[in-house]
Amino acid sequence: MLSHAVIEKLEAIVGQGRVKTDIDSLATWGCDWTKHYTPAASAIVFPASTEEVQAIVLLANDEKIALVPSGGRTGLSAGAVAAHGEVVISFDRMNKVLDFWPADRMVQVQAGVVTAQLQQFAQEQGLYYPVDFASAGSSQIGGNIATNAGGIKVIRYGMTRAWVLGLTVVTGKGEILNLNKGMIKNATGYDLRHLFIGSEGTLGFITAAQIKLERPPRNLRTLLLGTSDFNSIMHVLSAFQGKLDLTAFEFFSELALQCVTASGDLARPFPDVAPFYVLLEFEALSSDTEEHAMQLFEACMEAGWVVNGVMSQNETQARNLWRLRENISETIAKFTPYKNDISVLITHVPAFIADIDAIVRTSYPDFDIVWYGHIGDGNLHLNILKPPALDKDAFFAKCQEVNRSVFETVQKYDGSISAEHGVGMTKKPYLHYTRSLDEIAYLKALKHLFDPNHIINPGKIFDQD
Amino acid sequence: MLSHAVIEKLEAIVGQGRVKTDIDSLATWGCDWTKHYTPAASAIVFPASTEEVQAIVLLANDEKIALVPSGGRTGLSAGAVAAHGEVVISFDRMNKVLDFWPADRMVQVQAGVVTAQLQQFAQEQGLYYPVDFASAGSSQIGGNIATNAGGIKVIRYGMTRAWVLGLTVVTGKGEILNLNKGMIKNATGYDLRHLFIGSEGTLGFITAAQIKLERPPRNLRTLLLGTSDFNSIMHVLSAFQGKLDLTAFEFFSELALQCVTASGDLARPFPDVAPFYVLLEFEALSSDTEEHAMQLFEACMEAGWVVNGVMSQNETQARNLWRLRENISETIAKFTPYKNDISVLITHVPAFIADIDAIVRTSYPDFDIVWYGHIGDGNLHLNILKPPALDKDAFFAKCQEVNRSVFETVQKYDGSISAEHGVGMTKKPYLHYTRSLDEIAYLKALKHLFDPNHIINPGKIFDQD
Repeated sequence: MLSHAVIEKLEAIVGQGRVKTDIDSLATWGCDWTKHYTPAASAIVFPASTEEVQAIVLLANDEKIALVPSGGRTGLSAGAVAAHGEVVISFDRMNKVLDFWPADRMVQVQAGVVTAQLQQFAQEQGLYYPVDFASAGSSQIGGNIATNAGGIKVIRYGMTRAWVLGLTVVTGKGEILNLNKGMIKNATGYDLRHLFIGSEGTLGFITAAQIKLERPPRNLRTLLLGTSDFNSIMHVLSAFQGKLDLTAFEFFSELALQCVTASGDLARPFPDVAPFYVLLEFEALSSDTEEHAMQLFEACMEAGWVVNGVMSQNETQARNLWRLRENISETIAKFTPYKNDISVLITHVPAFIADIDAIVRTSYPDFDIVWYGHIGDGNLHLNILKPPALDKDAFFAKCQEVNRSVFETVQKYDGSISAEHGVGMTKKPYLHYTRSLDEIAYLKALKHLFDPNHIINPGKIFDQD
Repeated sequence: MLSHAVIEKLEAIVGQGRVKTDIDSLATWGCDWTKHYTPAASAIVFPASTEEVQAIVLLANDEKIALVPSGGRTGLSAGAVAAHGEVVISFDRMNKVLDFWPADRMVQVQAGVVTAQLQQFAQEQGLYYPVDFASAGSSQIGGNIATNAGGIKVIRYGMTRAWVLGLTVVTGKGEILNLNKGMIKNATGYDLRHLFIGSEGTLGFITAAQIKLERPPRNLRTLLLGTSDFNSIMHVLSAFQGKLDLTAFEFFSELALQCVTASGDLARPFPDVAPFYVLLEFEALSSDTEEHAMQLFEACMEAGWVVNGVMSQNETQARNLWRLRENISETIAKFTPYKNDISVLITHVPAFIADIDAIVRTSYPDFDIVWYGHIGDGNLHLNILKPPALDKDAFFAKCQEVNRSVFETVQKYDGSISAEHGVGMTKKPYLHYTRSLDEIAYLKALKHLFDPNHIINPGKIFDQD
């Protein structure tokens, strides 16, 4: 519990009414989309500026109070959960576009700007912010940067990291750093900006960012193909990637499609049933691109990789094809899926998936797996569905057992135990499957350097020794 | 001087004949393209593997010997100069392509692979390595990564950083770290890979890298335009960038063009004399792109921004237009230019150039400035030509004076004192014009973390306290 004196000091920084301690607020801002941990925040503070964040961090150092940053609270690894009496710093009030440089195609936003708000701002300037994912309507740019968010356009546009030209951060020690100041080229010593990107709020708090924007994509076309087996997906990727400028290359299994079509207004894209489906998107920059895509499609059918497929002829058709992919997460929710978000080299994907399927089939024959993900960048979402007969707690306990085999297989293929969801608390026990012990020792030392009192989001990514 | 015992220990690691101490070798491998410092290496060692590099670093820690990494030795900031009796680690023998993953479009190379060799390998696979610059025929990929090399295609393809998916490094403590292992998506704690990129060999030695390759550009067209003044360049950039996918946007001044045409076989591109010239390159992905470019060209002439211009109709013409830009550095060499490589936001470029021109014109009326650079990413090469009557040492002394004004102006516009050449020793006294004192304190602490005995390229970027 926070003393009344501390709450008064916090109020002196952010103003009356901007420190909340009521039960509803503690529950709302004390957690993210992960539900494994019980939120137990002791207060929620709403600063409005970098300087107010700095004052809070300095106070927290004096008083030895742990702080948890809170953005759109859409995280899936409990990186923004206050489970141990921490004070939550919400960025909800820091939601302004600060500056825009048209010649640089760059915008500066506060950390609390919602991703969709940034996308909208870009659109109003005739530009485009290409990082996109299902939770873009709620997630905040500060959280995107803190987890180096990925999503559905990574194959063309890269991760959030690729779009951050400058960062304003308040370190765990309470210094304000303005990192890289928006420059494309700046070779003046270690790039601390990249250290903060993906650090999940454990080195300091991101309060503002300079974001590069891009020209909007032109004439997007969407193609949905059913493939005859998993390996065929890789052939299709190789055939198309060499010839077209892909902006997305997603896949999902028949079981995923069944879940989506069973639960809503979406029809199957074509009558044929295929074990896997590929959704690919490309820019039709010239009149012959589309024709070229159709030729590739036909060649893939002749090779036996593709059993059937459709290409969008207009926006509505494209949107409906995308919904077959995007609705998966929502429609499998009722099966209480156990989610893992893993990545390996594209080269290793077929063998990796075969290994995991074999493990689950052998040891847990009553478990169904729904596979989907961003296969164009080696990122797979592995969802184990709870058998109706199995109790939820028993199911999660069994999934923890499966985890060990899954992560041993990730390690076998030199992959990542968390492709784009971060480590937070849920993946913390498994960090060593991807990072070596030497690396983890450096992570801890880096944390200690920027946050010697371990004030800033402690117990996330790793436990400090 | 190294003791005979130490030389024997080094030979035990790398083999007989692979430790050189003759005067010619010390002079050759003891320096880079900067000539301000006298090389004074005490030995040159040629390891063949990561493990040999590790053994050398461990020995150096035991014996307290400073090490300097040496790649293609094309650096322009003395980052690879051994001026204080250091042992030089040359990567010349580590010049192999180690692995290639076609589905990932990724190659793994040893650090000593020459940039052009990597470009060639990519081409043989039907792919493309897009980082390119004048010294690509000599520079090594390890050095490119250590300085985060930029060059002429950054506007489209980004810096070297954007292409590094994995790094093998030997830290200053002698650990081998395999960082990120080639993954596109990997959200498992701080990305140490990005800390080593651009660290100029001061945290550890890069011994191998996994490099992403890209599809080759298609139907490149080159357009050379003369502009009526500097501001017009910005209008032209804005007009073209919105409409075409630019792969380069370079500029140079009339004086630069005069130097190039006076010294070789290249003719002026058109009879009109303009104060500035823009070279832009784009992919003509469809038949109407070229026509569209011509319309933009005409619109820029009607607006009064462009006085004349030519578009390449074939490869030879394109190459000759590029040579007008690429030959500048070589042809001004005889004027003993004092070089600065600076960057500011594109928005600030016109005001920045006007400020610098005014400073030089007022305080040093006998100095000529040759401006050129990668204006599409705010990177300007400022070259002050030595007046024939002025003695070389007196000229350099005066340029040091000019530096203070130049870097104060860089600071005024929140720019970088070194856009793509690194800090090394030549820019070390000016680091604080771009990085804050808090940041510099962190740089030093990071160095100390990875290299507590200050064995690895000491005295580069900053002096350790």
